[in-house]
Amino acid sequence: MPSSQALHDSFRRNIVFTLHLQVAPDGAALHDALDAIRAAGARVGDIAVGQPAGPQIDYTVTVFTTGDKQLAAVREKVSAVKDVTLTQVVDVALESHRGGACEMRGRSAIRTNTDLRVVYTPGVARVCKAIEAQPELAREYTGIYNKVAIATNGTAILGLGDIGCVPGMPVMEGKSAIFWEFVGISAEPILVDTHDPELFIRVLETIAPTFGAIQIEDVKAPECFRITRELDEKLPIPVFHDDQHGTATVVLAGLFSALKKTGKRIEDMTTAICGAGAAGTAIADLLLLAGAPDVVLVDSKGIIDTGRGDLNPDKRALAERTNKHKVTGGLADAMKGRELFIGVSQPDIVSQDMVRSMAKDPIVFALANPVSEISVADAYDAGAAVAADGRMMNNALAYPGIFRGALDSRARSITLEMMMAAAHALAAIVPEGSLMPEMMDPNTHRAVANAVAKAAGK
Amino acid sequence: MPSSQALHDSFRRNIVFTLHLQVAPDGAALHDALDAIRAAGARVGDIAVGQPAGPQIDYTVTVFTTGDKQLAAVREKVSAVKDVTLTQVVDVALESHRGGACEMRGRSAIRTNTDLRVVYTPGVARVCKAIEAQPELAREYTGIYNKVAIATNGTAILGLGDIGCVPGMPVMEGKSAIFWEFVGISAEPILVDTHDPELFIRVLETIAPTFGAIQIEDVKAPECFRITRELDEKLPIPVFHDDQHGTATVVLAGLFSALKKTGKRIEDMTTAICGAGAAGTAIADLLLLAGAPDVVLVDSKGIIDTGRGDLNPDKRALAERTNKHKVTGGLADAMKGRELFIGVSQPDIVSQDMVRSMAKDPIVFALANPVSEISVADAYDAGAAVAADGRMMNNALAYPGIFRGALDSRARSITLEMMMAAAHALAAIVPEGSLMPEMMDPNTHRAVANAVAKAAGK
Repeated sequence: MPSSQALHDSFRRNIVFTLHLQVAPDGAALHDALDAIRAAGARVGDIAVGQPAGPQIDYTVTVFTTGDKQLAAVREKVSAVKDVTLTQVVDVALESHRGGACEMRGRSAIRTNTDLRVVYTPGVARVCKAIEAQPELAREYTGIYNKVAIATNGTAILGLGDIGCVPGMPVMEGKSAIFWEFVGISAEPILVDTHDPELFIRVLETIAPTFGAIQIEDVKAPECFRITRELDEKLPIPVFHDDQHGTATVVLAGLFSALKKTGKRIEDMTTAICGAGAAGTAIADLLLLAGAPDVVLVDSKGIIDTGRGDLNPDKRALAERTNKHKVTGGLADAMKGRELFIGVSQPDIVSQDMVRSMAKDPIVFALANPVSEISVADAYDAGAAVAADGRMMNNALAYPGIFRGALDSRARSITLEMMMAAAHALAAIVPEGSLMPEMMDPNTHRAVANAVAKAAGK
Repeated sequence: MPSSQALHDSFRRNIVFTLHLQVAPDGAALHDALDAIRAAGARVGDIAVGQPAGPQIDYTVTVFTTGDKQLAAVREKVSAVKDVTLTQVVDVALESHRGGACEMRGRSAIRTNTDLRVVYTPGVARVCKAIEAQPELAREYTGIYNKVAIATNGTAILGLGDIGCVPGMPVMEGKSAIFWEFVGISAEPILVDTHDPELFIRVLETIAPTFGAIQIEDVKAPECFRITRELDEKLPIPVFHDDQHGTATVVLAGLFSALKKTGKRIEDMTTAICGAGAAGTAIADLLLLAGAPDVVLVDSKGIIDTGRGDLNPDKRALAERTNKHKVTGGLADAMKGRELFIGVSQPDIVSQDMVRSMAKDPIVFALANPVSEISVADAYDAGAAVAADGRMMNNALAYPGIFRGALDSRARSITLEMMMAAAHALAAIVPEGSLMPEMMDPNTHRAVANAVAKAAGK
């Protein structure tokens, strides 16, 4: 078994390159090259053999690195291997976003004048008039009800903070590509360039008829709460904040799955959540709805409780519906004796001693991205019955199916009950030996969609 | 030669159906069916033979009709033909818009966990950070600079008026499909649900970073003038109102082409324009820039001149830059003695006598949609040297190439000079015997794009 440190390090290897190698067909050249990659501290991923093009064999080797410095070491060590030529290095993330990760296309070709005359003027007038006479036909003769806006103001892009909406665009485009791939939804990034929640709401309200649903994305707390709540109340279409609701759904799915593994019950899950932003708040609400008896949240100043004088209105409300026993103190105090820890905060802030202070055989979800609060290996080492990090609990397990189900069922909102149904659906299809279902299996997203649509119908 | 009335009637046959026929292989059955269609008053378009599937031959016959009543007559007459079975009738415009005419797709498949990890979290963080550090990289690693917003408030959808933005959606989606087909631009309909120009401007300004350019579409005059002008001034990207600028470009192209045919000169083109809305105003400005000596516009109250007390600020400004000789009166007065008539107004409001009152061998562009101010045949009959209607002068000849050229050249605005360059480029590639270039030829749009990019570089 790899050491704890090695596993945690592997978590930090997020920068992906492909090395294009020409390798002599005989001997151990490929194996030597892979050894060289490992010796440089990087890890090997997918390997693909190229078209035969000469006496050498072409390999494309994916490597996971900590960044450019480690890549330089890989280059140096691989170049020194006998019978191996490094012909090209590709930065995979950058290349996969070249020209953008998504695009709007016509759904059928326009090849003849007749095609043009029906898709556009004069024939299209008939379609417009039909919808004018019978507004419900917009469901049939426009793409509106298969469209989701992915709206951000760039204030909380991944773990990167307020980097602005244009630098956040690759995240929105990546989500759009996932929506298309997994559930065939046409998802359109909308950069809403304002820090004013009032204007953000006004803008989305005004363009809302374009879409069948809205995904708020990477908007910082506390503004995200008001924005999501007000828009969802005002609009006849679902408004869903992935960083709140998507994350909470996936965490709850992981918890259901962990409970099954351990034979524990949700009614016993006394919980400490580190991070009281969008994710932490939504997780707390969903846990309480699911039957967790006591949830305590911790922010950068300590445990959230009604006695604190520094809470904004959203955190004050949160204090009132959590922390039943009015615990005070810091993260260590919050974790003591608890059955479940959920981290949605910062790297490396949970020690093994803190895990040891929890109840026997605790469940530890350390989800900070890209580096977790404690490594999975360290958590197991300190006695966790189940431990997981953010790589295992990817929101992309939840939001595609949730939106598919909400659109299919014509839901006006995505309720906590629908999220709970999604979480149960995910937990129900976890393969033996895993904590979460298989992301690449289309049945995963179909199962979520069906459960959500069914819950919406209630 | 068909009678004038017959040709004008054919203009009214805008409703397209396909008839699915099973026809006996021998004898005159297909011919009899086509005769039956004509006898019902409809016209035959494309005919396609189906896959052999039995003793009968399957034909799909496109028919152009005036609407459901004429379709009923077609059904009745075709059903009566011996050896022909009418198996299905499809409303082509509705079908071509079923589910919407466009959709947002991922640009490459997500098949593996590595794919997911680079298009989305954690790999995408590297792309975001690269753009944050060097904003110009947004051109390379996002789709922003290949994206056009097609923004409407639904106040002037085709000739249908203020039908609202959702019923206008099929027009926006049709335009998007054309953008994709002709020039590979990702064009996204944005329904801006407000009648307040101030809010319209505010909304587009706020979401503008999402796009490389904005096409304002089917917004009524006079609001469209202020909206387009203010947005173009405020934003670092081009803002183009197709009903103004696209139409004006195509009309100017048609004029350049007609001048070539007739040996006339732009310097002699005294002009009457019927319709002083978005299109009429932009056409007047482009004509004056091109060197037309005198342009008079007519609205529903008569000739626009500075003496009128009922003009809004935009029309007052228009009066000041047109109607050099301060003519007054109605449409008939405006046309008298003029070389060029351009109609962008209403069906059937120009008589043959009005055409006869123009200068010798006049040019008549009667562009009202879907039925023109005077039929092309009537115009020729009354002495026009060149006559054209809206079917021949389709905006889709201009706007795809204009945007392609503007995006390729990183233009901040689409100037009158760029539109003029587009018009010249279109006129230069008109095939012998035609007035306008071939819409379905990709070279048409490439020629426009190149000319516009070149003009932008000046």
